[in-house]
Amino acid sequence: MRTFVRFTALATVLAAAAVSADEGMWPPSQLPSIEAKLKARGLELDAKDLSSLTEYPLNAIVGLGYCTGSFLSPNGLVATNHHCGFGIVQFNSTKEKNLMVDGFLAKDFAAELPADPNQRLYVTEAITDISARLTKGLDGVGGLKRYDAIDKRSKQAVADCERDPGYRCDVYNFNGGRNYLMIKQLEIKDVRLVYAPSEWIGNFGGDIDNWMWPRHTGDFTFLRGYVGPDGKPAPYSKDNKPYQPKSWLKVDPKGLEVGDYAMVTGYPGRTNRSRLAEELRDAIEFSYPRGIKNMGEALDTIARVTKDRPEAAIKYASTVQGISNGWKNQQGQLEGFAKTTAVADKEAEEARLLAWIDADAGRKAKYGKAVTALKAELARIRALRETELYGNGLLSMGPTLYGTARDLYKLSLERRKPDAERGFGFQSRDEIKFKGRMASIDKRYDAEVDRALFELSLARYLKLAKAARIPEIDRALGIDRDGMTVADLDARLDALYANTTLGGMNARMALIEAKPRDFEKSSDSFVQLAVALYPAFERMETEWKVRAGNDGLYRAAYLDALIAFRESEGRPAYPDANNSLRVTYGKVTGYSPKDGVANTEFTTLEGVLAKVTDADPFLHPKRAVELMQKKHYGKYADPKLGTVPVNFLTDVDITGGNSGSPTLNKRGEVVGLVFDGNWESVSASWVFNPSLTRAIHVDIRYMLWIMDEVDQADHLIREMGLEPSP
Amino acid sequence: MRTFVRFTALATVLAAAAVSADEGMWPPSQLPSIEAKLKARGLELDAKDLSSLTEYPLNAIVGLGYCTGSFLSPNGLVATNHHCGFGIVQFNSTKEKNLMVDGFLAKDFAAELPADPNQRLYVTEAITDISARLTKGLDGVGGLKRYDAIDKRSKQAVADCERDPGYRCDVYNFNGGRNYLMIKQLEIKDVRLVYAPSEWIGNFGGDIDNWMWPRHTGDFTFLRGYVGPDGKPAPYSKDNKPYQPKSWLKVDPKGLEVGDYAMVTGYPGRTNRSRLAEELRDAIEFSYPRGIKNMGEALDTIARVTKDRPEAAIKYASTVQGISNGWKNQQGQLEGFAKTTAVADKEAEEARLLAWIDADAGRKAKYGKAVTALKAELARIRALRETELYGNGLLSMGPTLYGTARDLYKLSLERRKPDAERGFGFQSRDEIKFKGRMASIDKRYDAEVDRALFELSLARYLKLAKAARIPEIDRALGIDRDGMTVADLDARLDALYANTTLGGMNARMALIEAKPRDFEKSSDSFVQLAVALYPAFERMETEWKVRAGNDGLYRAAYLDALIAFRESEGRPAYPDANNSLRVTYGKVTGYSPKDGVANTEFTTLEGVLAKVTDADPFLHPKRAVELMQKKHYGKYADPKLGTVPVNFLTDVDITGGNSGSPTLNKRGEVVGLVFDGNWESVSASWVFNPSLTRAIHVDIRYMLWIMDEVDQADHLIREMGLEPSP
Repeated sequence: MRTFVRFTALATVLAAAAVSADEGMWPPSQLPSIEAKLKARGLELDAKDLSSLTEYPLNAIVGLGYCTGSFLSPNGLVATNHHCGFGIVQFNSTKEKNLMVDGFLAKDFAAELPADPNQRLYVTEAITDISARLTKGLDGVGGLKRYDAIDKRSKQAVADCERDPGYRCDVYNFNGGRNYLMIKQLEIKDVRLVYAPSEWIGNFGGDIDNWMWPRHTGDFTFLRGYVGPDGKPAPYSKDNKPYQPKSWLKVDPKGLEVGDYAMVTGYPGRTNRSRLAEELRDAIEFSYPRGIKNMGEALDTIARVTKDRPEAAIKYASTVQGISNGWKNQQGQLEGFAKTTAVADKEAEEARLLAWIDADAGRKAKYGKAVTALKAELARIRALRETELYGNGLLSMGPTLYGTARDLYKLSLERRKPDAERGFGFQSRDEIKFKGRMASIDKRYDAEVDRALFELSLARYLKLAKAARIPEIDRALGIDRDGMTVADLDARLDALYANTTLGGMNARMALIEAKPRDFEKSSDSFVQLAVALYPAFERMETEWKVRAGNDGLYRAAYLDALIAFRESEGRPAYPDANNSLRVTYGKVTGYSPKDGVANTEFTTLEGVLAKVTDADPFLHPKRAVELMQKKHYGKYADPKLGTVPVNFLTDVDITGGNSGSPTLNKRGEVVGLVFDGNWESVSASWVFNPSLTRAIHVDIRYMLWIMDEVDQADHLIREMGLEPSP
Repeated sequence: MRTFVRFTALATVLAAAAVSADEGMWPPSQLPSIEAKLKARGLELDAKDLSSLTEYPLNAIVGLGYCTGSFLSPNGLVATNHHCGFGIVQFNSTKEKNLMVDGFLAKDFAAELPADPNQRLYVTEAITDISARLTKGLDGVGGLKRYDAIDKRSKQAVADCERDPGYRCDVYNFNGGRNYLMIKQLEIKDVRLVYAPSEWIGNFGGDIDNWMWPRHTGDFTFLRGYVGPDGKPAPYSKDNKPYQPKSWLKVDPKGLEVGDYAMVTGYPGRTNRSRLAEELRDAIEFSYPRGIKNMGEALDTIARVTKDRPEAAIKYASTVQGISNGWKNQQGQLEGFAKTTAVADKEAEEARLLAWIDADAGRKAKYGKAVTALKAELARIRALRETELYGNGLLSMGPTLYGTARDLYKLSLERRKPDAERGFGFQSRDEIKFKGRMASIDKRYDAEVDRALFELSLARYLKLAKAARIPEIDRALGIDRDGMTVADLDARLDALYANTTLGGMNARMALIEAKPRDFEKSSDSFVQLAVALYPAFERMETEWKVRAGNDGLYRAAYLDALIAFRESEGRPAYPDANNSLRVTYGKVTGYSPKDGVANTEFTTLEGVLAKVTDADPFLHPKRAVELMQKKHYGKYADPKLGTVPVNFLTDVDITGGNSGSPTLNKRGEVVGLVFDGNWESVSASWVFNPSLTRAIHVDIRYMLWIMDEVDQADHLIREMGLEPSP
């Protein structure tokens, strides 16, 4: 009978899918302008309410910096993805007590576990356009001059904004420098782990299933924000109390059905939808192939060096997950582009844009040079890309303790300037996070792995011609002729890793208050390396500022033209994602991955059971398996499916950073969490394809089934205003 | 827009799929008993008409012995699958002229190419139940006595029936010996190749796509039956004329849509639906694992030995296709059984059958011993299976020229008996086919490949313990101790392959009229081998007869009970497939191969194009590729799909032998040809699964598009009563 109801459900939704998807990651302020479309899709809220940062549901949305979450209770309970909270679970795992596999459930507030001190929860409270203030008098000015002016004004604006304690303010660049928005966020500094299911549920399918459909992952975790006794954000203290948000999202335990309106609010990271065709071509022909090769080698190296060393493996688990994700993502993008005409489509649009500009004297005067100026700057940068990738790559990333020493040294140098003039990340507002990072480095550091990865980067660097190499690196490592290999540097590397104490927290913390000359006369090998390379690091930073300044001039002009052109054709004119709060909407719908096949909207408990094996990543908790075998659905079965839905597909427009975002129904109630895109969507950072780009969500009914039936998290279910099974 | 219409179409069909499929390969005579079901599915013909062998459409259905075809014109034009006609294409291919790749289209009757002389077309004209005549007085009699009695009576009945010249009559065993039916078929002996598209279309996807969905194969070919100037069947002669069938099928160039009634009429080979659970278990645990290993090794061996020898490769192409098919099929069956509870289901049914028998004194008296008697016989056979597989396997198959010599020797021996008493295949009625086979052996024989395959079988034989080995084989090959290897027999094999002339047609043909002692004093190595092994071969044949006699007793009794039991539960009681003419019906419908995925009903030209590469088996004719790129659909696009459908899925119940069967619509008109089952259906020879078992058809619109637009077979389109594009 299950086949019957599932087919019927499918029929309904596929008919609904006839109407094509609406792309767009909309800044809240733009929502009223598309209210008609939202209503047509089924939204029952007013677009005006939905666009308000101080009202339900947007004021219950939480940023993690790299992911999204949402308040689900008046006591600051935050739902996010398992893979977003994974670092916190890992941080609290030891060789003896592996919370990653065992899962974790705090029985009460006191049992909740602190995250690393640099973990944050952000709540966006105000967004203000300050473009005029930042760019005044900079018409036609690019390069370092533009960068410095905007940097200085931004810092002043941020300082003004942050006079309000407990808030973090940041200037966000929209549309490539065409608009600058000040975003003011409440910054909760004490974040704790409340509940994480076993990774056998939360990461079921692992890298094999990552980006894939059909999917069966219980990718959810619960955190909680804590604040000081005065209710204001404060660093971790056992006297802190759960944060009381103004709003928290209502949960609809009924979930969605095929064709239903679905909406995702969150913090999408970066998209490249408005980039030039040649930038996409560079990615396809240069950056991604190199990236795939390099990430693949890094994964192999970590696997090799952590083999039979579970402690080291735990330290790098989160790193490995991140690299794997990128590695698979870039491969998927190349695969996607190989099947589509994305570059040609972009070229065609650029040709049409140029024709549109040429067709009108006013437009010609206004946008005439926009395209050629940007292309000239791109050509300049392209000529430097080998050095950028393998030389500057070493300077900016490099060995962990080099980066640690360099940041500490830079902090000592920046401290000599007035706070407002210091570099981003080195102002007093960044101090706690900086210290937190310094304190926790060894949680994710193993000298053997680190050295192996450094050798990998060095081997690539050594292949650069002398002219493309960086003199300071050559001098510091003793590279004095072409054709040297990593083996030639063995003694130097031995010394580097032997003569340092930065692997210990005390040595690092001691340097936070040190003066520049303390570094310059230090006998610590990585501190010496950081000081020796610092001039090159500064040159690199200056070049990056020049690029940013030029980009702010040329790309803004190009975007100005492109937006005007797109709007003249009635096409979406939302800005590329930039880590700021966005809303995207769509519906529950499947898609056809290839001729003769349809990926349907829901997966089910039966599909989980069919995937379970006795090998990673398809291991599964015994209790969950037994319940599935017994078809013990509790009260969480969908009446049409006849079983518990696990994951589902929608056509909402998301990207990395959206992970953990609540999936909302037409009334703004939580019906799941978004946690991935499909394989066909990985190239959507460049081009949205309405018939193929899909988001993958974990269904609220599966979350509740796991919480209620498998993990007995009854008190959390009650905290969300629901009742567990008797 | 295409996505739109395809999704809509899908929606319709999946809703229709809610009603579960009807299994069954129905003998025509049983159709009136299920008329209500046929009508409910949409059939517009009367079941009575459909069951008549002398009326449209059944009298237009043609058997090839191993496949099915159908008359599509008054001049005996026969449509069948490309893979059914492949042997004929191969037979006419040479190193210089590779018709397999080039395809072939005869411009007129005179240009049509003769098939091997043993190729036949059969038209079933009468089916008569002769059970009473054959089994009279044999109550409770099994073994050789039963076999011999039935054999003798069958031959007499066949001889009586074949007094009508031009006909072939055969006794078919239905329901394991419960019923014997005399089937009388017109036997057309001159078969010619009319048209075959390139194998790049006809076998597109090759072994990779075999049994798979999505599928994009143009698996069709046209043959023609020829008869003597008097209109009677006759061997090939250039004076022969195209056969004029009483009926030929009407073609509906509009094809089917999702949910439409579909019907397949043809000659399904063998199914095991009524076998015991333990027989299925034996297949899963013994026969299939061995078969998969042995076939895999044979494929590797042929590939190795034909490498860089295209002539040898062409000779074995058809053999390789056959082995690959079996190899993949058995793997699919094991995969299917691993996912299902087929053995347990069968055990449960047997338990219910026993309970049903026990519940009634009359049934107990009638069926009481049916199950135990059959099980005892199965246990007896099971004990012999190693010798059967590796010893008798050598005797019955063995090297090609050994088999040739053995059959010729047997013919000489059988000839000493009255015609009616000779073994099947050795009567005068079999002579032409026998001669044709003898004439064409070298078309598919290469000594190097043959020896390599023989060595493979020998290696397995040599692993048998002495007691399981066959004395005559040991003596003839000089196997005189345990632990010998094939290398030890090298000189013997050299001599075997050196001292024979049977590789030449003349030597073989000369032996057709030879006497037994001509063989017994022959100096030909393979003739000597055949004579030496003949006593063992006869012992094996006797054992097979004993088995057949016992099976006819015990299995018939079991089937009698099983059919009565199933009918008591209102379940289908059609007989297992046995190469006789059957009708199966269903509808166009997709299925869900796994949670979250649906395989949809149609594939399209766009899907073909997406699969084309520059490597076998995804090569494709340039002209077809160009037309697809231009979306040149001619008049063959489906209005809902917006493109030309290529293959489609239905839930009709088919098996091997059905290949090439016409797919008929509700009016009995041709809308495609069935050519494969899906991967999930390969275990359907044992168990039909209504939600997963699907047949794959080539769509008439794709066939016509290829004929019209790619190959310009305009005269054939006209011959079928249609008009090609202007």
